[in-house]
Amino acid sequence: MATQTIDDLPTPALILDRAILRRNLKRMSERLLSAGVMLRPHLKTAKSVEIGRMAVEGHDGRITVSTLAEARYFADGGFNDILYGVGIIPSKLGAVTELRRRGVNLRIVTDNLSVAKAIAAAAKDGDTFSVFIEIDSGGGRAGLPFPALPGLLDIARVLHEVPGVDLAGVMTHAGHSYHQSTPDGIAAVAEQERLAIVTAAEKLREAGIPCPIVSAGSTPTAVHSRDFTGITEMRPGVYVFNDLDQEYIGACGAGDIALSVVASVIGHYPHRNQLLVDAGALALSKDISAQEFQPKVGYGTIADPPAAGMAVIECSQEHGFVAADDPLPYGNLPIGARVRILPNHACITAAAYDRYYVVDSDLDGGRSVVDVYDRINGW
Amino acid sequence: MATQTIDDLPTPALILDRAILRRNLKRMSERLLSAGVMLRPHLKTAKSVEIGRMAVEGHDGRITVSTLAEARYFADGGFNDILYGVGIIPSKLGAVTELRRRGVNLRIVTDNLSVAKAIAAAAKDGDTFSVFIEIDSGGGRAGLPFPALPGLLDIARVLHEVPGVDLAGVMTHAGHSYHQSTPDGIAAVAEQERLAIVTAAEKLREAGIPCPIVSAGSTPTAVHSRDFTGITEMRPGVYVFNDLDQEYIGACGAGDIALSVVASVIGHYPHRNQLLVDAGALALSKDISAQEFQPKVGYGTIADPPAAGMAVIECSQEHGFVAADDPLPYGNLPIGARVRILPNHACITAAAYDRYYVVDSDLDGGRSVVDVYDRINGW
Repeated sequence: MATQTIDDLPTPALILDRAILRRNLKRMSERLLSAGVMLRPHLKTAKSVEIGRMAVEGHDGRITVSTLAEARYFADGGFNDILYGVGIIPSKLGAVTELRRRGVNLRIVTDNLSVAKAIAAAAKDGDTFSVFIEIDSGGGRAGLPFPALPGLLDIARVLHEVPGVDLAGVMTHAGHSYHQSTPDGIAAVAEQERLAIVTAAEKLREAGIPCPIVSAGSTPTAVHSRDFTGITEMRPGVYVFNDLDQEYIGACGAGDIALSVVASVIGHYPHRNQLLVDAGALALSKDISAQEFQPKVGYGTIADPPAAGMAVIECSQEHGFVAADDPLPYGNLPIGARVRILPNHACITAAAYDRYYVVDSDLDGGRSVVDVYDRINGW
Repeated sequence: MATQTIDDLPTPALILDRAILRRNLKRMSERLLSAGVMLRPHLKTAKSVEIGRMAVEGHDGRITVSTLAEARYFADGGFNDILYGVGIIPSKLGAVTELRRRGVNLRIVTDNLSVAKAIAAAAKDGDTFSVFIEIDSGGGRAGLPFPALPGLLDIARVLHEVPGVDLAGVMTHAGHSYHQSTPDGIAAVAEQERLAIVTAAEKLREAGIPCPIVSAGSTPTAVHSRDFTGITEMRPGVYVFNDLDQEYIGACGAGDIALSVVASVIGHYPHRNQLLVDAGALALSKDISAQEFQPKVGYGTIADPPAAGMAVIECSQEHGFVAADDPLPYGNLPIGARVRILPNHACITAAAYDRYYVVDSDLDGGRSVVDVYDRINGW
C-alpha cells in the first residue's frame, strides 16, 4: 500500500509535526535540567501516552493530568507518578484510591480545609493519599491567595498529622502569564509565581512541616523565568505543541507550532473575498485567546498561505470562513484543495479529535503520515 | 441496584431532560404539520439515533446531518433519507457512494459548477447521486447569493442532464436569524429565506428543470415564520434542546432548555465572590454566542440558582469560574455540591460528550437517570 499523505486523510483531521514536537520537548527539557528543576509536564494538552513518554525523557517520569480519565489512561500506559492538578472533591477520592491500589502514586490537590479533613478521614481506613496544597500566585483561579495564604498551616497540619497522608508539597500555576506579551512581562509574572510558592514552602518548613516538592509552572513562565531558586519542579503543558497564542505572547517562535488542522476548501465566494473550509467551530474550537494580542488571527491562521493574512475569521459548526488581506487566489485553492490551519489554542483544538496523524517536516516537508498517536478525551 | 441520580454521576456530565425534549419535538412537529411542511430535523445538534427517531415521529423519517460520520451512524440506525448539509467536495463522493450502495438515499449539496461537473462525471460510472443546490438567502455563509443567483441554471443543467443524478431541489439556511432578537425581526429574516429559496425553485421550473424539494430552515425561522408558501421542508436543529442563545433571541422560552451540564463545586473564593466548578472550556465549550444579547450569561448560567445571576463567567480548560450578582451562598454550595449549567450554545457544548444521561422532570423533578443515549462525534 502506498504511503498515506495528508492529502489522503478525511478532513478535518489533526496533524502533528514530530520534528517540531521533538525540538519543543528537547528545548524545555534541557532548559529545566540546566536549571536543576525536574519537569512534570502537564499532559492535558497532548493527552497521549506516546507524547508523554517522549516528554519525560531525561527526567524521572512524573507527569500532570487534568482529568481522572487521563489519570487512568496514563496509568495504563505505565506512568506511576501522576499529579491530578484540579482541586479534588470527596466524591472523587474513590477513583483516586482505585488507581493508588494499583501501585500508581496518583497525587491530588486541595486548597480547602474541609476537603483536607475528608482526605484525612478517608486515609483512616487504611488507604493512603499524596496531597499538594494549591497556592494562588496571582492568577486568580484556584489556590490560597498569596501573600496572605489564609489557612495554609491549618490545612497542612490536618494532612501532615495523619499517618496515611503524604503532604507532597505545594503547587501553583501562574495563569496570568498568558496575558503578558514581552519576555520582561512574563519574567515578572514568573518571579511572582516563584516568590509565592517558595514563601508557602518556607512557611510550612518554619512550622516544622516537611515540604519536599515545590511545584510551579506554565509554558510562558517556564520559558522566560530568570530564577528557579527554591522551585523543584515545573509543569508546562502547551509547549509540547505551541500555538498562535504562545507565539503572540512570545513564548515560542513562529516555526515552533507542531499542531495543525488539515481542512478542505468547500466553497468559493469571490463577491466577499472569502472561501469556506470544512473545519468550523467543532474542528477548531471557539477559543480565541490569541485575539488578545492579534485580533486578525480569528480562529486560526493558514500555514504556508498562498495569500497574505489568510485566517479563519468566523465559524459555524462545520464551516470555517477564510478571508485574507490580499485577494484570495482561488485558482491556487480550487474546491477540494487542502489547507493547514494553525490553532489559536492548541489544548482546546486538540480535544475535538481522537488521534494525531503524525508527519515529520524534517523528512519530506511533513507530507507523509509516519505514525498515528491516540489520545484520551472526556472525563 | 439503586436508581442512579444526577448526584451519582462523575462530573462533568451531560444531562438531557426527556420531558422538555418531548415538548420541544412535539411543538415543532405540530407547527410544521399544520403548515403542511415536512420536517427534516438537523441532527447535528443531537447526533443521537434515539433522539432522531423521536424527532421524526409523525413525519416521513427524512433527516439532515453535518458530517459523514453522522451519515454513517444514522444509516446504521435505520434512517434512509439523509441530507448531508455541508458543501460536498469530489474526494468525499466515494464515501457518499458507499452509503448509497447500501440503499441509503444520502443526498448532497453544492453551489459550485466544477463540483456539479465532478458529480456528473462520477455518476457516469453507474453510481447515482441526489443533489441539492445551495442558496444564500442572506446569511452570507454558503450558497449562491440571492437575488442574483449566479450560475444557478448552469449548475442545475449539468446535474439535471445526467441520468444518474437526481436534482432533488434547492436548500438554504438563514443563519442570520440568530442575530435577531424579536419575533418581528426573525419573521422578517424568515420571509427573506422563503423568498430566496422559492425564487430559486421557480427559476429552475421556469427553465423546465424540476425542483421537487424546496428546503429551508433554522430554529428561529421555523418558530417565527409567518408564511411557508412554496417551502416543502424545514431543517431546524437546535430546537430539540434549545439553549440560552435561543432563549435570548426569543426562539424558545426559559423553561424549554432540555440540556445541561452537571458539575461539582471544587473551590470557594469568598474574597472575590467566586467559586470554581469542574466544568471548564472543554465541558462547556468556549462558544459565547448568547453574549450577543446578554453579556452576563458568560459560558452558561446556573439552573435553579441559589443566588441571583449565577453564571460561569470565565473558563480555563477544566475550571469554570462561577460568579453572581448576589453574594454567593457558600453554605448552600459546599465543596462537592452539584450545580447544573445551562448551555450557551447547545450544539457545541454537547459535542464534548459521548453520551446523554437522560432524566425526566415530569417524573421526579429530573433527579433520576432514566436512560442513556449515545451520540456520534468526530468526522
